[in-house]
Amino acid sequence: MSDANELASISAFGPARSTVQDTNPLSKDEIEKYDDYFKASLYLTLGMIYLRQNPLLNEPLEKKHLKARLLGHFGSGPGQIFTYMHFNRLITKYDLDAIFISGPGHGAPAVLSQAYLEGTYSEVYPECSEDEEGMRRFFKQFSFPGGIGSHATPETPGSIHEGGELGYSISHAFGAVFDHPDLIAVTMVGDGEAETGPLATSWHSTKFLNPITDGAVLPVLHLNGYKINNPTVLARITHKELESLFVGYGYQPYFVEGSDVETMHQAMASTLEHCVLEIKRFQKQARDSGKPFRPRWPVIVLRTPKGWTGPRKLDDRFLEGFWRAHQVPITDVHENPEHLKVLERWMRGYEPERLFAGGRVAAELRALCPTGPRRMSANPVANGGLLRKPLRMPDFRDYAIAVGKPAGSIAGSMNNMAGFLRDIVALNPTNFRLFGPDETESNKLARVYEAGKKVWMGEYFEEDADGGNLAPAGRVMEMLSEHTCEGWLEGYILSGRHGLLNSYEPFIHVIDSMVNQHCKWLEKSLEVEWRNRVASLNILLTAVVWRQDHNGFTHQDPGFLDVVANKSPEVVRIYLPPDGNCLLSCMDHCLRSSNYVNVVVADKQEHLQYLPMDEAIVHCTKGIGIWPQFSTDEGAAPDVIMASCGDIPTHESLAAIDLLLTHFPDLKIRCVNVVDLFKLISHIDHPHGLTDTEWVALFTDDTPIIFNFHSYPWLVHRLTYKRPGNGHMHVRGYKEKGNIDTPLELAIRNQTDRFSLAMDAIDRMPGLKKRGAEAREKLKGAQIKARNQAFEEGIDPAFLSGWRWTRGEGGK
Amino acid sequence: MSDANELASISAFGPARSTVQDTNPLSKDEIEKYDDYFKASLYLTLGMIYLRQNPLLNEPLEKKHLKARLLGHFGSGPGQIFTYMHFNRLITKYDLDAIFISGPGHGAPAVLSQAYLEGTYSEVYPECSEDEEGMRRFFKQFSFPGGIGSHATPETPGSIHEGGELGYSISHAFGAVFDHPDLIAVTMVGDGEAETGPLATSWHSTKFLNPITDGAVLPVLHLNGYKINNPTVLARITHKELESLFVGYGYQPYFVEGSDVETMHQAMASTLEHCVLEIKRFQKQARDSGKPFRPRWPVIVLRTPKGWTGPRKLDDRFLEGFWRAHQVPITDVHENPEHLKVLERWMRGYEPERLFAGGRVAAELRALCPTGPRRMSANPVANGGLLRKPLRMPDFRDYAIAVGKPAGSIAGSMNNMAGFLRDIVALNPTNFRLFGPDETESNKLARVYEAGKKVWMGEYFEEDADGGNLAPAGRVMEMLSEHTCEGWLEGYILSGRHGLLNSYEPFIHVIDSMVNQHCKWLEKSLEVEWRNRVASLNILLTAVVWRQDHNGFTHQDPGFLDVVANKSPEVVRIYLPPDGNCLLSCMDHCLRSSNYVNVVVADKQEHLQYLPMDEAIVHCTKGIGIWPQFSTDEGAAPDVIMASCGDIPTHESLAAIDLLLTHFPDLKIRCVNVVDLFKLISHIDHPHGLTDTEWVALFTDDTPIIFNFHSYPWLVHRLTYKRPGNGHMHVRGYKEKGNIDTPLELAIRNQTDRFSLAMDAIDRMPGLKKRGAEAREKLKGAQIKARNQAFEEGIDPAFLSGWRWTRGEGGK
Repeated sequence: MSDANELASISAFGPARSTVQDTNPLSKDEIEKYDDYFKASLYLTLGMIYLRQNPLLNEPLEKKHLKARLLGHFGSGPGQIFTYMHFNRLITKYDLDAIFISGPGHGAPAVLSQAYLEGTYSEVYPECSEDEEGMRRFFKQFSFPGGIGSHATPETPGSIHEGGELGYSISHAFGAVFDHPDLIAVTMVGDGEAETGPLATSWHSTKFLNPITDGAVLPVLHLNGYKINNPTVLARITHKELESLFVGYGYQPYFVEGSDVETMHQAMASTLEHCVLEIKRFQKQARDSGKPFRPRWPVIVLRTPKGWTGPRKLDDRFLEGFWRAHQVPITDVHENPEHLKVLERWMRGYEPERLFAGGRVAAELRALCPTGPRRMSANPVANGGLLRKPLRMPDFRDYAIAVGKPAGSIAGSMNNMAGFLRDIVALNPTNFRLFGPDETESNKLARVYEAGKKVWMGEYFEEDADGGNLAPAGRVMEMLSEHTCEGWLEGYILSGRHGLLNSYEPFIHVIDSMVNQHCKWLEKSLEVEWRNRVASLNILLTAVVWRQDHNGFTHQDPGFLDVVANKSPEVVRIYLPPDGNCLLSCMDHCLRSSNYVNVVVADKQEHLQYLPMDEAIVHCTKGIGIWPQFSTDEGAAPDVIMASCGDIPTHESLAAIDLLLTHFPDLKIRCVNVVDLFKLISHIDHPHGLTDTEWVALFTDDTPIIFNFHSYPWLVHRLTYKRPGNGHMHVRGYKEKGNIDTPLELAIRNQTDRFSLAMDAIDRMPGLKKRGAEAREKLKGAQIKARNQAFEEGIDPAFLSGWRWTRGEGGK
Repeated sequence: MSDANELASISAFGPARSTVQDTNPLSKDEIEKYDDYFKASLYLTLGMIYLRQNPLLNEPLEKKHLKARLLGHFGSGPGQIFTYMHFNRLITKYDLDAIFISGPGHGAPAVLSQAYLEGTYSEVYPECSEDEEGMRRFFKQFSFPGGIGSHATPETPGSIHEGGELGYSISHAFGAVFDHPDLIAVTMVGDGEAETGPLATSWHSTKFLNPITDGAVLPVLHLNGYKINNPTVLARITHKELESLFVGYGYQPYFVEGSDVETMHQAMASTLEHCVLEIKRFQKQARDSGKPFRPRWPVIVLRTPKGWTGPRKLDDRFLEGFWRAHQVPITDVHENPEHLKVLERWMRGYEPERLFAGGRVAAELRALCPTGPRRMSANPVANGGLLRKPLRMPDFRDYAIAVGKPAGSIAGSMNNMAGFLRDIVALNPTNFRLFGPDETESNKLARVYEAGKKVWMGEYFEEDADGGNLAPAGRVMEMLSEHTCEGWLEGYILSGRHGLLNSYEPFIHVIDSMVNQHCKWLEKSLEVEWRNRVASLNILLTAVVWRQDHNGFTHQDPGFLDVVANKSPEVVRIYLPPDGNCLLSCMDHCLRSSNYVNVVVADKQEHLQYLPMDEAIVHCTKGIGIWPQFSTDEGAAPDVIMASCGDIPTHESLAAIDLLLTHFPDLKIRCVNVVDLFKLISHIDHPHGLTDTEWVALFTDDTPIIFNFHSYPWLVHRLTYKRPGNGHMHVRGYKEKGNIDTPLELAIRNQTDRFSLAMDAIDRMPGLKKRGAEAREKLKGAQIKARNQAFEEGIDPAFLSGWRWTRGEGGK
């Protein structure tokens, strides 16, 4: 359908066609060995999909040997295996430090078969030993209840990339090689995956990779041709377009195309070798000269038939080279004896009896594998916890904001915390990076640039010297793609380092699914004994909903917390520090932790400060507490509990207490503040949760609670519906009401402003039913007045942000 | 930093450099006019950002004329205006039908100024009249409390793309031109936006656009050079790379680069004209021949300085052509009198007194605009509700699944419903499309292909004839990018048509943020009087969590409902039909509705069927109800209420009733089923919600309720925490427990299986404390036995899926 002039024959079938030609690095003997190795590996792949008994086909294949339910994906396996095994040759030849990232969906059989052939699998899981019974177990567990998945899950030795959700192989790979100058991440990209948005933009990662300080990614785009039921876009455009696309992305593409195995061995071996030498040449040039540059990094385009080496047709229908080879290639072997025979013939064609004589892979094939940690299935980088060193951390107390009278002065909590981050960057020059989608400066974290600038390998212009903060060797990673930033960070952490993502709160939903998947990875990793704990994934959210008044409705969405709260309590933590010292304490805690997803929500504007550092530490350690300095109940039963969670909601809640005390100086008010959101849920459901006894000590079981919350109010109800006295809980939060507003107006629309909260309290206290009416009127009047003034001027009246707590200790 | 050989001068400054050369379509007089028009438009843009008084600068500019809080983005405005106004010439010259999509973030001033100059704005909003006072109001309202936003929000005439969240301009544009053969969508893509994943892959949309039946997108990549605080990737790669990238994406790139306004006028005018003629030529060729093909569609790369025509420097710091021009270009005009003067000089440089003499734009400038609906700000396509025709719908009752004994037989609900969809496709050949990320066949909707195949404009291979279901003119849109599919669907709907997205449940989180943004668009549209209602965005989720046992943990996430439930009750609807006839009824309802986001969750496997069509209609209309055929309370007070929501949870809940009745034949059980999730919430909070009286009639306020839910259980608690008797509500659902399991095992892990539910019921009924113990033991034993059998065989025992309701009416 393309422009007629550009039509190109792009069938995956035929003798090898490749960019690198006339080098035949393999001897005839080597070709035979690699051919055997390929067969052995393909055999294992089919075995995983089909067999629960008779693993070596020592007996004729019968139905009883088959798994009852056939699951697994064959389609992309052959191409992945082909790449992996030919790269092994180069690892040995050049003593390379490499990992393999399997991007195509359900690609595990390929890498599992390699881990088994390399011996790693049996080392890690001794029950899957290198003998007939071990192989039987190895086959049976695959996609079998209680067994292992068809993705490269945490159980897979050598994996840092599960690939359950598609799109992140390249960003994970780049994350892994940053600050690992000798590492090469061989990264298979499925042509299905390549259609996703996150993958499509992640190719640009080369603009952020420094050939002196970072390693290299060698992407292999696998043009398998088909997805589940459709051809892939990249397999059906012209050769010229495909080549141009990669030149455009900044790569030098090398094609290896065909189905003839013998010629493909030479083509793949020579192409991979050429690419490795190119990588080494670029690195040497940059490192010898000390001048980082952005070369045209190599990318391989591997076009092989889907289900390569399988039957081209089954009956009259296409199989190899078509989407029917995507998953289980022959599905009806239980019911169709003819097809069972086809399968048996196919499997025997891989010669298991010869290649696994005695149940163990032939020694001369094993000799093709690297050894020890050079095996990609055993590289410690892919069990990053092994490499993880604790961050060198300055004492966060040294960055304390001086707080005299509580709520008596303002400071920029975020800007202050940036000093702490800056020094962490300085102390960990190869171990920590800050990530963000072009928002770090906007988020008031620019002081970090004093210790590490933004990595930039694109062109430099004259203006850049004027505050551009760009450098080839920087520590801050900024690309306008939350997906890429998150993917880099995940790869960086999973390979043993530390990091932090900062992002606008409203657009963090862009990576809901990525964070979900990372939570799932962490959760499963806890069950894998040999995986060491990795640094937590830390997400700092700012530009929060309550200060998105001027940006309007599209920028108002605090719902990421709901997504995170659905994940396993073993791995998620949510903190909403109310002020600057609490922010420091929370960040210190998060950056020291491991195996969590920590979400910290804090506004970036200047804010009232409440707690001196020592009190902040106590408050954050407890995660929730009564604030006596703003309370008037002094041990007596309170009339009302004014609770808050989040810096801006806390500010308004305190101002509401102030208003209430102005009108009712004798009111017994208890002020409760929540930093650690999961304190609200039962200790049975989350390790941070309070017991009901602890809950009642704070909230009683009979007092009205006016809870001002940062996010959607229903999240608090969801966490507290079982609590004693939960019927007294009145939660305010963002209710999806907003437009172009002032902060006051936005708060009023959602009833989180001080006036609304004070009126809420009056309404809920039975004792104020009568005498509260007048005060309520006044509050309403003050609210309307402030509102009108804001409408007229376009800014809120100064008395709102100028509010300070003026009472003595105990709020009197 | 690039390869030294390829370094290219890519400054945005200087005389025009363009691909199309030696054609100078504009006369000197025309250049002068366009120059004036440009100035008038730029003046309006600055006016919106700065002024609340003195709109025409009739007086010297003083602080009191300024808005108190300065908001808005100037950076991308000039380039957008330049494109818009030069395209106007071609609209008039060739009588084009066109819309303008503004991709760059906060790009509204550019399009608002055009709408005002074209007169549309004053027609729609008479208070912003074409005189001094009207202009003052027009200025003041911008980014002002109670006013309009800095994105192309629903209030913006001519907009179908708000651009609050970046990345969707191209997919929206393609969605709008599908089945609009004469429409051209001129689409500005910001170079910031271009870094996002969704945008990066959406360029491939051309592989799904048929030049005979569809219109054309003319993308203009605006190389503004900078994001908020960083250079953009695409502005800092070599010219060759940039050109290759677009050739690779399948386009013919045309460059227009420079800052010299006079030469840029000629370059832009001639380039746009060339591109329009190319589009017309391709369309003519395909339409005359009847042979659709995929041409190299034109794309324009417009490189102009950020903040073009502003001061190059402010004091010693770069402004024009640097990121400091991104937002408000001079921020301290309130405090710095010198800078206020700079601003005034700058604004007067645009000659407002001459161009808006008498407060109205000069007639000869207005004459440059198209008229009536040819104005891009007034094209009815951008108010799609005007064009929307109801779908032609077959009677869904004709597709009813025959249901004899309730829960007595199984059928494929999804496969059956596909017949209904197929006939909708057939009846609406230019008005309805089905979208999905390569999952339509997997989702059992393949019967749709009988009426409309999958659109495919890539190459065709021999295998495609073997069940490929591809065609250049199809009705099903499949690309492995949820982002692109969703963007296409949004664009298709917003321009007046109908559609449905089908997707795997686990990966719908990929587009959480897009759906959020669409909800917000719909919600705001309700407040815009002149916007007509558009078709609902319908999302059909299948491959649900409970049948993702074999795909493992990464495929288990039903949390999209939590994200949707946070949006405004005015626009979101969630349905979980329990069986095939209910699915038909729900789909019929959703496809007829308007201005909602409808989410329907249904499994794709074969299922027990419960309700004959007439009962299904009643049940779905009520949205919730008692199922007497599975109840034994017969008007008496029930001992327990077994409630369910979702097809698989319903199945297990009914089986649990069966188990309970086996052990306790005299038990009074009430069976309640929920189709419409928002029935659970109070009618105060959602228009579908039940009153408390209605609630009590179903659930009582004192009976234990065992509620089996499709998604995370907390969502039900969140919706029902206020209900009478909510302490009796025990909700089961997915609790983030899963691995490679059988369906039974997955259910048991999450306590949603029949055995667990029956035991739950026993535990909650005080009357069964004693006599229930034995039954409980038996249930536990049966559960363990089934579980072990599944572990051994790899599939669940047949008696589980073979379960049928065997009791008489009333469950006896």
